[in-house]
Amino acid sequence: MSETVELGFEQARELALEAMHGRGFGEAEAEATVDALLAAERDGLPSHGLSRLPFYLDQAASGKVDAGAVPSVEIDGAVVRVDAGYGLAFPAVARGLEAGYECVARLGVAAVSIARSHHFGVAGAPVEAAARRGYLAMAFSNSPSALAPWGGSRPLFGTNPIAFACPRRGTDPLLLDLSLSKVARGKVMLAKKRGEPIPEGWALDVEGQPTTDPDAALAGSMVPAGDAKGAALALMVELLTAGLAGSHFGFQATSFFDAEGDPPGIGQLILLFDPGRFTPQFIEQAETLFAAMQDQPGVRLPGDRRYRLRREGGDQLTLPAALVAELEAHVAAGCS
Amino acid sequence: MSETVELGFEQARELALEAMHGRGFGEAEAEATVDALLAAERDGLPSHGLSRLPFYLDQAASGKVDAGAVPSVEIDGAVVRVDAGYGLAFPAVARGLEAGYECVARLGVAAVSIARSHHFGVAGAPVEAAARRGYLAMAFSNSPSALAPWGGSRPLFGTNPIAFACPRRGTDPLLLDLSLSKVARGKVMLAKKRGEPIPEGWALDVEGQPTTDPDAALAGSMVPAGDAKGAALALMVELLTAGLAGSHFGFQATSFFDAEGDPPGIGQLILLFDPGRFTPQFIEQAETLFAAMQDQPGVRLPGDRRYRLRREGGDQLTLPAALVAELEAHVAAGCS
Repeated sequence: MSETVELGFEQARELALEAMHGRGFGEAEAEATVDALLAAERDGLPSHGLSRLPFYLDQAASGKVDAGAVPSVEIDGAVVRVDAGYGLAFPAVARGLEAGYECVARLGVAAVSIARSHHFGVAGAPVEAAARRGYLAMAFSNSPSALAPWGGSRPLFGTNPIAFACPRRGTDPLLLDLSLSKVARGKVMLAKKRGEPIPEGWALDVEGQPTTDPDAALAGSMVPAGDAKGAALALMVELLTAGLAGSHFGFQATSFFDAEGDPPGIGQLILLFDPGRFTPQFIEQAETLFAAMQDQPGVRLPGDRRYRLRREGGDQLTLPAALVAELEAHVAAGCS
Repeated sequence: MSETVELGFEQARELALEAMHGRGFGEAEAEATVDALLAAERDGLPSHGLSRLPFYLDQAASGKVDAGAVPSVEIDGAVVRVDAGYGLAFPAVARGLEAGYECVARLGVAAVSIARSHHFGVAGAPVEAAARRGYLAMAFSNSPSALAPWGGSRPLFGTNPIAFACPRRGTDPLLLDLSLSKVARGKVMLAKKRGEPIPEGWALDVEGQPTTDPDAALAGSMVPAGDAKGAALALMVELLTAGLAGSHFGFQATSFFDAEGDPPGIGQLILLFDPGRFTPQFIEQAETLFAAMQDQPGVRLPGDRRYRLRREGGDQLTLPAALVAELEAHVAAGCS
C-alpha cells in the first residue's frame, strides 16, 4: 500500500489554491479548477480529482498550459463562443455556462462552444449544474486520440465523453456521464502497473487486432463501446466539439498527462434546453418514465451512485502522500 | 422465393400517392410520405421503404393514424414546436425543417421538436438534407419500447435512432445513422420466420436473461448497443424526444406494425447548427479529420455505402407482388 494522508476538504482546498497561485493561475481560474477537482473527490471519482492537479501545474511550469489565460466569451444569437485561450477548461466552462444561462432563458436553447481548451474533468458536472437550474443539458468533449475509426487501426478520436442531465421534481437531476471506449484507458494502465494481462475485447494492437497485452493495447487503441456505433459517435463528438470550436481533433491533441509539447487545445460543446419552452408538462411527464424504471427490481437511475457517495462522504479526504508532497513542492516553487 | 414485380419509380410513386389519397391523406402529406419511402428504397433501406405504407394505410383506415392531420408549426426563440397531430411523421418533419432553417439562419442554432408523431422513417434523411444546406445536424426519435433499462427486464425505451450529418467541401455530407439496440429487431423477426435460433448477445427474455429463442426474445427485450451505455443513451433520447415534445414515451407507444389501439404518438428532436457562426474554418478543418480517416486502409466514411447504392440504383424498383396488390386494394377502397 502507498502511504496516504488525511486532509480536511478546506485544508486540501487551501493547499491546492496556493499551489495554483504559485504557478501563476489567477484567483477565479484557480477556484474554478480546485472546486471542480474537489467535487470529483466528493463524488467518488478520484481519477478526475486532485490527482490531476500536479499535471496541470507541471504543464503551467513548462508552458503547455497558459496559467495566465482568462477565458473570453461572446454571445451571438443562441451561440456562446468561449475561448479558453490554452488555459485550463474549468474556468472556461464556468464562464460559458453563465453566458449560456442568459441565452437559454431568452431563446429556449443555447449552444456553448469552448475552443482551445483542456481536460473537461467530470463531464457530468456542468450538465448537473444546469439541470439544478431547471435546464435539460447535454455536454460533449473530445480528448487525445484513443479510438480508431471503425475498420482502422490507428487512434484518431478521443474517448469523448457524453453527459446528459434532466431536472427532476424535488430531487437530484437524472445524470448520465459516459465515455465512448468500452472500458476506461486507466484500467489498461492499472493492469500494466500490476503486470497483468487485460481481458480480450478491451483493446486492439497497432495492427488493429485484439490484444490482451497492456503494452500492445496502450500502443494501439481502445475498443469503442458498442463497436462500430461507438466509433461513429466518437467521430460525431469530434465534429461537435473540436470541429465547431475550431480546435484540435483528438489526433492533433497532446497528452493531458505530461508537460511536453503544444497545449492539447481540444474543444467542448454544452447544449442547454429550457423544457418549459418546449412543453409545459415536461417535469411531470418525465416522472412517469422514472417511476416506470424504478418499478423494476435491479434498476438504478443514472447518477444515483454519485449522489449517494457525495452525501455519504465526510469532511476528510484520503490522498496519496506523494500527491500532497507534489502540491507542496509547487507551492514552494511559486514562492521562490 | 416470393413473387416480385418490377415497377418504375414514377409508376410506384403514382400508385403510392393514389393509395394515400384513397385513404384520405392530403396532397402535401402524401407527397412528403411517399418521397421519403422511395428515397429509402433508393438508398438500399427497403425495411424503411414502401413496405411500411400498407401499415400506414391500414392505420388510417382504423383511425390509429389521422389521415386528415396537417402539421402545425410555432417558432419561439430558437425553439420550433411542431405538432404532427397524430398524423404521419414525414410531413411534420418537412414542415419543421423549413421553420428550423429560418431559425438557424437567424440564431445559429435551432431545436425542432415534433409532438404526437409516428415512425421517423430513415433518421439520416432530415440531417442529410440539412447538411446539404450547410448545417451540422443531429436527429433523435423515440419508438415503441424494445430496450429494458440497464439491470431491468421489461422494455421501456425504443431502439431510439441517433442520426448526425456534417456538410463537406464539394461532396456528399458525412452521415451517421444508428439505433441503440445491438442488432435490429427485424433480424430477430427474420430468424423466427425461418425457424432459426438467434446468436447469444442479441436479446434477453422476459426475466432479463440472455436467450437464443426468437420468440422469447420478441417477448423480452433487445440488448442495447454498448450494454449499459446504450441503455443510458436510449433513456436520454426518450427525454429529448417524447419528453421535450410532451408525447408518448416508448413504453406508452403502440406498435407501428398493426392498426390496433391509440396512435403511437411518439416524439422527435432535430438540432441544427450553423458552423460558420461557431468558427469560420469549420469546413476546411473537418476535411483534415476525414483525410486522416481515409488514410487508413479499411476505413469507410459513414454514409458512403448509402450514397453508393443511391447512385448505382437504376430507375426500376423490385417490390413484393403482395405489397403492390395491397397498395392497389387501398386505391380501390378509396374509390368505393
